[in-house]
Amino acid sequence: MSGNTFGKLFTVTTAGESHGPALVAIVDGCPPGLELSSADLQRDLDRRKPGTSRHTTQRQEADEVEILSGVFEGRTTGTPIGLLIRNTDQKSKDYSAIKHVFRPAHADYTYHHKYGVRDYRGGGRSSARETAMRVAAGAIAKKYLAKLGIQVRGYMSQLGPIEIAFKGWDSVEQNAFFSPDPEKVAELEAYMDQLRRDQDSVGAKITVIAEGVPPGLGEPIFDRLDADLAHALMSINAVKGVEIGVGFASVAQRGTEHRDELTPEGFLSNNAGGILGGISSGQPIVAHLALKPTSSITTPGRSISIDGSASDVITKGRHDPCVGIRATPIAEAMMAIVLLDHLLRNRGQNADVQVDTPVLPQL
Amino acid sequence: MSGNTFGKLFTVTTAGESHGPALVAIVDGCPPGLELSSADLQRDLDRRKPGTSRHTTQRQEADEVEILSGVFEGRTTGTPIGLLIRNTDQKSKDYSAIKHVFRPAHADYTYHHKYGVRDYRGGGRSSARETAMRVAAGAIAKKYLAKLGIQVRGYMSQLGPIEIAFKGWDSVEQNAFFSPDPEKVAELEAYMDQLRRDQDSVGAKITVIAEGVPPGLGEPIFDRLDADLAHALMSINAVKGVEIGVGFASVAQRGTEHRDELTPEGFLSNNAGGILGGISSGQPIVAHLALKPTSSITTPGRSISIDGSASDVITKGRHDPCVGIRATPIAEAMMAIVLLDHLLRNRGQNADVQVDTPVLPQL
Amino acid sequence: MSGNTFGKLFTVTTAGESHGPALVAIVDGCPPGLELSSADLQRDLDRRKPGTSRHTTQRQEADEVEILSGVFEGRTTGTPIGLLIRNTDQKSKDYSAIKHVFRPAHADYTYHHKYGVRDYRGGGRSSARETAMRVAAGAIAKKYLAKLGIQVRGYMSQLGPIEIAFKGWDSVEQNAFFSPDPEKVAELEAYMDQLRRDQDSVGAKITVIAEGVPPGLGEPIFDRLDADLAHALMSINAVKGVEIGVGFASVAQRGTEHRDELTPEGFLSNNAGGILGGISSGQPIVAHLALKPTSSITTPGRSISIDGSASDVITKGRHDPCVGIRATPIAEAMMAIVLLDHLLRNRGQNADVQVDTPVLPQL
Amino acid sequence: MSGNTFGKLFTVTTAGESHGPALVAIVDGCPPGLELSSADLQRDLDRRKPGTSRHTTQRQEADEVEILSGVFEGRTTGTPIGLLIRNTDQKSKDYSAIKHVFRPAHADYTYHHKYGVRDYRGGGRSSARETAMRVAAGAIAKKYLAKLGIQVRGYMSQLGPIEIAFKGWDSVEQNAFFSPDPEKVAELEAYMDQLRRDQDSVGAKITVIAEGVPPGLGEPIFDRLDADLAHALMSINAVKGVEIGVGFASVAQRGTEHRDELTPEGFLSNNAGGILGGISSGQPIVAHLALKPTSSITTPGRSISIDGSASDVITKGRHDPCVGIRATPIAEAMMAIVLLDHLLRNRGQNADVQVDTPVLPQL
Repeated sequence: MSGNTFGKLFTVTTAGESHGPALVAIVDGCPPGLELSSADLQRDLDRRKPGTSRHTTQRQEADEVEILSGVFEGRTTGTPIGLLIRNTDQKSKDYSAIKHVFRPAHADYTYHHKYGVRDYRGGGRSSARETAMRVAAGAIAKKYLAKLGIQVRGYMSQLGPIEIAFKGWDSVEQNAFFSPDPEKVAELEAYMDQLRRDQDSVGAKITVIAEGVPPGLGEPIFDRLDADLAHALMSINAVKGVEIGVGFASVAQRGTEHRDELTPEGFLSNNAGGILGGISSGQPIVAHLALKPTSSITTPGRSISIDGSASDVITKGRHDPCVGIRATPIAEAMMAIVLLDHLLRNRGQNADVQVDTPVLPQL
Repeated sequence: MSGNTFGKLFTVTTAGESHGPALVAIVDGCPPGLELSSADLQRDLDRRKPGTSRHTTQRQEADEVEILSGVFEGRTTGTPIGLLIRNTDQKSKDYSAIKHVFRPAHADYTYHHKYGVRDYRGGGRSSARETAMRVAAGAIAKKYLAKLGIQVRGYMSQLGPIEIAFKGWDSVEQNAFFSPDPEKVAELEAYMDQLRRDQDSVGAKITVIAEGVPPGLGEPIFDRLDADLAHALMSINAVKGVEIGVGFASVAQRGTEHRDELTPEGFLSNNAGGILGGISSGQPIVAHLALKPTSSITTPGRSISIDGSASDVITKGRHDPCVGIRATPIAEAMMAIVLLDHLLRNRGQNADVQVDTPVLPQL
Repeated sequence: MSGNTFGKLFTVTTAGESHGPALVAIVDGCPPGLELSSADLQRDLDRRKPGTSRHTTQRQEADEVEILSGVFEGRTTGTPIGLLIRNTDQKSKDYSAIKHVFRPAHADYTYHHKYGVRDYRGGGRSSARETAMRVAAGAIAKKYLAKLGIQVRGYMSQLGPIEIAFKGWDSVEQNAFFSPDPEKVAELEAYMDQLRRDQDSVGAKITVIAEGVPPGLGEPIFDRLDADLAHALMSINAVKGVEIGVGFASVAQRGTEHRDELTPEGFLSNNAGGILGGISSGQPIVAHLALKPTSSITTPGRSISIDGSASDVITKGRHDPCVGIRATPIAEAMMAIVLLDHLLRNRGQNADVQVDTPVLPQL
Repeated sequence: MSGNTFGKLFTVTTAGESHGPALVAIVDGCPPGLELSSADLQRDLDRRKPGTSRHTTQRQEADEVEILSGVFEGRTTGTPIGLLIRNTDQKSKDYSAIKHVFRPAHADYTYHHKYGVRDYRGGGRSSARETAMRVAAGAIAKKYLAKLGIQVRGYMSQLGPIEIAFKGWDSVEQNAFFSPDPEKVAELEAYMDQLRRDQDSVGAKITVIAEGVPPGLGEPIFDRLDADLAHALMSINAVKGVEIGVGFASVAQRGTEHRDELTPEGFLSNNAGGILGGISSGQPIVAHLALKPTSSITTPGRSISIDGSASDVITKGRHDPCVGIRATPIAEAMMAIVLLDHLLRNRGQNADVQVDTPVLPQL
């Protein structure tokens, strides 16, 4: 049962189906005194919004968020923040064909076996539409973190076979792919255009980085910062892998190569991705996530019906050929939520020793 | 603060330092009626135990576990199971040299900044010695799952640069590496012998598989089965990456290639690793984890002292040159704990539709 | 921080201020397959609604609830249920006088000291208006429990000095006080009329009873059924005491008098209130709660301003002279939420022994 | 399942049966830097210990506690504190007679129906012996709170029909009853002596008070300080009622009488018991709890066997004729645990407004 809440002191609870009346969230534990308006949330929602380029689903959703509570005279009060986004562009009839068929690689089969019933329209609760609310909640966390000088940003580091080198943050917001290399954009566009012609989809890799994080965040053993990040990022639709720092490349590394040496001027490298023993080290937190190719494609595939008989299936409806394209703001949101939660949990400070554990900001 | 409990209905809480008096755990939520004795736990503890080959630390720990509660007349009673392992081979004097110095890539630096004080002997709480209790707790979960026909097993799939193909389960328990290819063992031994001569360490990749898992386990959105597995596996010391199914390989896959088609006879492939939409599909659950090379090596490295001054550091003490070698039972334990927790949480059953949601066994 | 979620497997998260745009709730963990429409929730909301008699606040709120998610084709799907009630009759200007003054016995003082800012209009988050969402969520739990033959009902057992004997359930819904003795209603009305003339308020005692609860609910030690009930009922605004069974009367009882003897035909008494060792016994669960007199009264009282200076205060606005009058549906809701949560948590069943532990219903 | 953990940031997990090998606890979230030795815990354990006067059970338990982890060089490190108490005086043969019979008013019946099996020796997990670990954990919380100037103390306020007025703290520790009126002690002793001759037991009322608590502790709505206190205190064995402040007396109060007026010099009364809107006000926190008479008495009572047949039962073994006599340290422990947990959770501070929210001490 219940699994729609994330976090311990800064908690985000979401509800809502792809084709139901609305998405709703309750963000609990935001400290009081933070200036907040719906415009603060809208910026990131617009970055995630479908239909902004030809490379994403053509579903048109305004994704206008309303703040229902927790803000008074323009500032948070410390009480829970209710958020509402009405669904406006549901075309449910697109989905009647798949009412009795399980789309391959989709959650149809597992929701059916778990719950017995399912809202088959657009994937219902399993749709990535749900992530809009994560982005809205994450925007609150990001704004709070920014007050502390903590900045959470992401970019696409690979699209299908095309690896994208990090050339700088400037271009990331200036193309539909969140590509950090402006010279790669034309190649990405050509690849996507061909993909649509092939009636196929493709995976992507996203990198998220938090800078300005103070040392000391993370609660060993099980609530380590990296473990909570892995949890948060793997909970995003279509994610199949999570790495911290060099990740799987550490398998082939030797200790002399991997270890980040320290000097009085700071660390000499960041293979660890900013986390040692589950606790932030003060270096940038670096995470990578792998998103699988969308399962909703128009190339027919073999499947079965609810009655167990064989059935070819074509997924109609409006879908993203690469869900990774819109995933950057979602990954940022989840990292920001984890960081704020751990910031609020961090009370390890011991005044006998002078340590730079974070202190809540004077908003 | 508090972060030493894992799970929601089947919970494991651990305590204990590397060189303190004892390790202790409380396993809460084990259903009643399960036959259980310390011998059931000892088997897996012995698989993880140090000192069983020349390729692991030479610390000698009997790791004898005592069951303090929760078992009556040979069966669990449903009340919490207390577990105790006394530390017996602590050589704390080995560590006085690093009392004031942060070992590179170790948790010394972050524990110091978080807590102000730290038990520097052998890493204290950040030592992998803590995982003995995970293995003991996991053995309880594995025994319970076995009653349901669920088998959780792991093996080493890569050691440094050496990839190890899966040739079958038979050889896994018959070599010190948990290698599923008996013909690779000589190569692994030679590699490790050279590594020790080089005074270096190396990473490894472990694969864990659960077979017999019924469909329906996992609670979307945030308590998805894959998200909880990522959390559990990333919480193991030295882990820097987690994959479900094909993991990062899905980035370069196309949808037509990735999607696991269904036929009346079953799925045709398992790129998903047994989880769709965060819920188990009935296929084997497959996870991979990357373990970084041990940070405790005798090749000197640059570091700083508590007072911030530069200081070369050599880690003495007895350490594993590849922590991955002993990690297989730990990974199995964490996967088993997650699966039993979700099995107990799964109440999605709807009797109107005939679904094969698991039912608790008649022990 | 975050404290607006109740429950472990059946969880209720609420948000919303007295004079904000709306109240919102997310009910997570309701099993799939339950027939549910907003009319099911409206019935209990109407029982709690203000303005239905001259003895409650004259604020007029339609309290119309909208189901935003989690229900498809008239049945729950197992996904979280979003609920929305728009506030319609906020008269915020009534409150400007108390913007800088702490009303005695009200949460003004403590919210100010905790958060630094507060939504002073109508008590903001500390207003009993928040309980509307508990009633809506509780109505879902009550409907589910009813399928199992579990009925949760409450009544007023004392109003100020007037004790009300239980004469039967029939009259409870037929008077504004939820009095189980129809012959007492005239006396209650006269008392309330005099109270209003006195510009004063009064306390009340509510009794809630659950019948049909199977034995076995409750998770010792800390998550005992009685402890969770005490938590739930004490969390209702204005509650200052909670009793299970004979409660404080047990202090003066002897063991021979208190113990509920068993015969093959059943228990001979129910001093325990249906709970032994924290676990339900199969007898009716009986709880009593004490509600203090409303702090919002028009008789002036001594208080201080935010700057610490002395200030007389009169609470204008529209208030209940006895909050206990509308508390019966709230108490029922909280008991129902606790019971459903524990029903879903209860997996203690051991098939070797034939026990009557509850099984989820065939909806 | 799992219900043996209490708290959110300062958490206490316990295990252990009355007649098993040992009691064990893990206290997680204690801030680092607190001086701590087993002697600190032993003081309160000795206050709770059985066999210290003729008015409690004659079971002889040294209740010697060993600290297994979390303390290094005499100070807490921030890592979890493992605690162990070996059972030494188990006389299990006393209990064979009740192996197949449910003692009236005892948890035998409900444990059997929940779990199917039970450790019948001395009540197993349902025995009040479990509270020894609460006292040990509470002693840690009390020591930390004392650093902040917060003092948690309790006394017996009623024994059976004998009400005991509060005359001062001095005498409380100087008699076996924790009576705050030294002149009542002779009457209490005479009452208890007669009770033993009657082969009967009796209830008691305990009052616990925390002084020096800063305003601002408590997280509305559901994690209110009073709700968490009610939860904690109701979870103590034999407790049937909990009151905050005037408690049930508030039912008959009028608002003009109940409300605690404020002046620049402070509150004029404390009917609220130090909590308004679920948040501490800075006044003393006052709670009362009702403990039922022990169910274990030697006067025969009607009961049934496991097979459902009628059976008279006499409880042999060694029991307290009034469990309330030893309950004062337990109640103190639970209140201290709740207060420290909420102190660590309290991050509501807003620097724009000068508020006296607590700050962690410089240990």
